[in-house]
Amino acid sequence: MKKILLSLILLVCAFTLSAQTAPALKSPKVNSDKSVTFLINAPAARTVKLTADFIKGAAYMKKGADGVWSYTSEPLRSDLHYYSFLVDSLSILDPDNTYVIRDTRRLMNYFIVEGGQGDNYKVQDVPHGTVSKVWYHSQTLGKDRRMSIYTPSGYENGKDKYPVLYLLHGMGGDEDAWLEIGRAAQIFDNLISQGRAKPMIVVMTNGNSKHQSAPGESAEGMYKPYFGGSMDGSFEPSFKDVISFIDSHYRTIRKSSSRAIAGLSMGGFHSLYISANMPGTFDYVGLFSAAIYPGKDVHSPVYENMDSKLATQFANQPRLYYMAIGNNDFLYKDNALFRASLDSRGYKYEYHESAGGHEWKNWRDYLCDFLPKLFIMK
Amino acid sequence: MKKILLSLILLVCAFTLSAQTAPALKSPKVNSDKSVTFLINAPAARTVKLTADFIKGAAYMKKGADGVWSYTSEPLRSDLHYYSFLVDSLSILDPDNTYVIRDTRRLMNYFIVEGGQGDNYKVQDVPHGTVSKVWYHSQTLGKDRRMSIYTPSGYENGKDKYPVLYLLHGMGGDEDAWLEIGRAAQIFDNLISQGRAKPMIVVMTNGNSKHQSAPGESAEGMYKPYFGGSMDGSFEPSFKDVISFIDSHYRTIRKSSSRAIAGLSMGGFHSLYISANMPGTFDYVGLFSAAIYPGKDVHSPVYENMDSKLATQFANQPRLYYMAIGNNDFLYKDNALFRASLDSRGYKYEYHESAGGHEWKNWRDYLCDFLPKLFIMK
Repeated sequence: MKKILLSLILLVCAFTLSAQTAPALKSPKVNSDKSVTFLINAPAARTVKLTADFIKGAAYMKKGADGVWSYTSEPLRSDLHYYSFLVDSLSILDPDNTYVIRDTRRLMNYFIVEGGQGDNYKVQDVPHGTVSKVWYHSQTLGKDRRMSIYTPSGYENGKDKYPVLYLLHGMGGDEDAWLEIGRAAQIFDNLISQGRAKPMIVVMTNGNSKHQSAPGESAEGMYKPYFGGSMDGSFEPSFKDVISFIDSHYRTIRKSSSRAIAGLSMGGFHSLYISANMPGTFDYVGLFSAAIYPGKDVHSPVYENMDSKLATQFANQPRLYYMAIGNNDFLYKDNALFRASLDSRGYKYEYHESAGGHEWKNWRDYLCDFLPKLFIMK
Repeated sequence: MKKILLSLILLVCAFTLSAQTAPALKSPKVNSDKSVTFLINAPAARTVKLTADFIKGAAYMKKGADGVWSYTSEPLRSDLHYYSFLVDSLSILDPDNTYVIRDTRRLMNYFIVEGGQGDNYKVQDVPHGTVSKVWYHSQTLGKDRRMSIYTPSGYENGKDKYPVLYLLHGMGGDEDAWLEIGRAAQIFDNLISQGRAKPMIVVMTNGNSKHQSAPGESAEGMYKPYFGGSMDGSFEPSFKDVISFIDSHYRTIRKSSSRAIAGLSMGGFHSLYISANMPGTFDYVGLFSAAIYPGKDVHSPVYENMDSKLATQFANQPRLYYMAIGNNDFLYKDNALFRASLDSRGYKYEYHESAGGHEWKNWRDYLCDFLPKLFIMK
C-alpha cells in the first residue's frame, strides 16, 4: 500500500500546476448527429467566443451558472476541424484538449469528425509506416537541411524497392506541415492498407531555402515563425540534392515512372517548375491550388523558357499531370489561365475542381484523390 | 507586382484569425543577465499570474498602461524552462511563443537559457541524427506498438554497427517524452559531436503496456491523456520483443557490452527489473530517480526472487550500474534502502546525488552525466 500511496503523491506532484485551474471538462465532444459541443470553464470572463474553420468570424459562447461557457455547432462534415477560444479578446487554446497543430506560428486545437472523409485522417487499426526526421546535405544550398520521410509498413522488414512521392508544403509551412495539419502519415497508412494507394516512400522537404529546418529545429534557435517561402528560384535547383540523397539512402525504384512530385500552393509552384526543369525525372505531377507564376520582379533561369521546357515535359508524355483547385481559391484565375495554355498546346492533364478556397481541407482531400492515380502503370 | 500582391493577400488570409488578437510581442525575452521577461497583452484581465518551473506557486504580473502585463524573473540558471499564464485563473499558453512541450496532458511553453547546462539542450550547428517513429510487433503483448528511435549522424551513410541505449520514460510519459521534454535528440547530437558520448542508437519505448502508443497516435483515438503506467509486471517481459526488433532491423552490436538500459522514475524501475530478469543482456544500467519497489499488492514473477537475480546480475560484473537522485526526491529513501542492500552484498555501483526533486531538470542532467560513461570499454 505504501508504494501505491507514493504513486499517488507522484501523480499529485505532476498536476500541481494544472490543479490550480478548473477540473477537466469533456471538450470538444462530437455528438451523435455530428454537431460538436465546446466547453470552457472561465467564470471570470465577460465574453467568450469560439473561432473555428467552420465558423465565419467568431461565435458567442453562452455562460452557465457554474461558470462554464458552452457552444454547440451545427452538424459538421466529416473532416479534421480546428478551433480556439477568444476569452475577453485573448486567443487561447482549449485547456481540456491536449491535441494541437501548428500552422506557421499559430497553434490550434483540432479534432476529427468521423464517418466520411475524416476517416482517412484518423489513426486506424491498420499497419503503420515509419515517420522519420532526416538530415541531408544540400550542396547547392551549402547547408545541412531537414526533411520528413514516410516509409510504408513492411519497408523495414523487406527488400522490395518502392516508388517515391515528393510532397511539398506551401508558404508559411515547412517539413512538418503535411504531417501535422495535412495528416499525411494517417492518409498514407489508411489508403495503402485499403489498397487505394500503392505502398510508396514519401519525402516531405523544407521549401524555404533560407532555413535549414522547421522553426526551432536548427541552430537559428526558437525564433517566431513567420510567413516566408522561396519563390525566387533558389529552392528548385537544390532538389537534385534531395533526389540524390533519397536514391542513395533508400530502396527506391530509380525511374521516372516511379517518381511523383506534388505540392500545395507554393509547393504546387515548386512542383510545376522542378518537374519542368528536370525533364524525364517525374512521370507524375500534382498541383494542388498551385501558385502558377513567379512575381514579375523575380528573375531566375528556373522560370525562363517555360514554353520550351513544358514542350519537352509533355513530349515525354507524363502519366499524370494533375491539377486541383477550389472554385473560391484566390489563385483560381491563374490556374484557369495555365490550363488554357496547356489546352491550346494539346497537353493532357487531369483536372479536379472542388468547392472552397485556399485551405487545408481541400489539400488533404486532393491528396486522397491524387494517391490512387499514382504508380498504377508499370 | 500583381503576384506579390497576391502573396500578400495569401499572407493576410493565413493570419485572419490571429489578426483578431493583439500584435505580436517578444515573449519570453532572455535578458543579458539571464533574467527573463514575459509579456502578455490582456487589457481586459483583472489579474494575470505566471506559473513556471522556477517559481513557487505563481507570480503576479504587472499591468502596463497599454494593457500589456509583464514580469521579469531573477537571473535563471542555464537550462530548459517552462511556464504558462494564469489569466483571471484560466491557465493559458503564451500567445507569442509557438514552442510548446507536453507532459502527460498538460501543454507548457518552454525556452532555453544558454551559457551552461542549457547548451546541451539547444539545437546547435552540429551533425544531426535521425529521429524516427517506428512500429514493431510485440508478440508478448499481442499488439503493434510505437517507439521512437534515434540513429546518430553517419548511420545512414555508413556500414558501421552501433551500441544501443534503451531509454525509458516515467509514469504519465510515453515514447515521445524523452524527445520532447527530455530534449534527448539535442543531447545526443551535442554530446556525440563533441566526443563526450559514443555514437549510439537510442531506443525510446512506450512503457505503458495498456497502450500501443502515445495519446492520439493509435486507433484508441484522441482521448484525454492520463497519468498511467505499467508497474504490474506486464511491460518487462515484452522487452525481449523490442530488443529482437532492434537487433534484426538496425546495425547493432549484439553484445551485452554494447547494450545499455536506463530510465527515469517508472522507467528506472523498468530498467532495474528488465536488466535483472535478462541476465547477460545489459552491461550498462542507469536508474534516474528510480521507483525501486513494486506495490505490496502487485504479484508478478518479474518482481520475485530478486536477491538471486541481482546476485546473478552482479556476478556478471556489469560495467556500470548507475543510480542518480535528487536529495529532495520523494523516492530518496527507497533509493537509499536499495543502495544499502547493494552495499551489504558488496555489489558495485556508481552514485550521483544532486539537489532538487523528482523533476525533468534532473533527468536531463543525469542523462548528460551518464552518457560519457557508456560503451567506453571494448
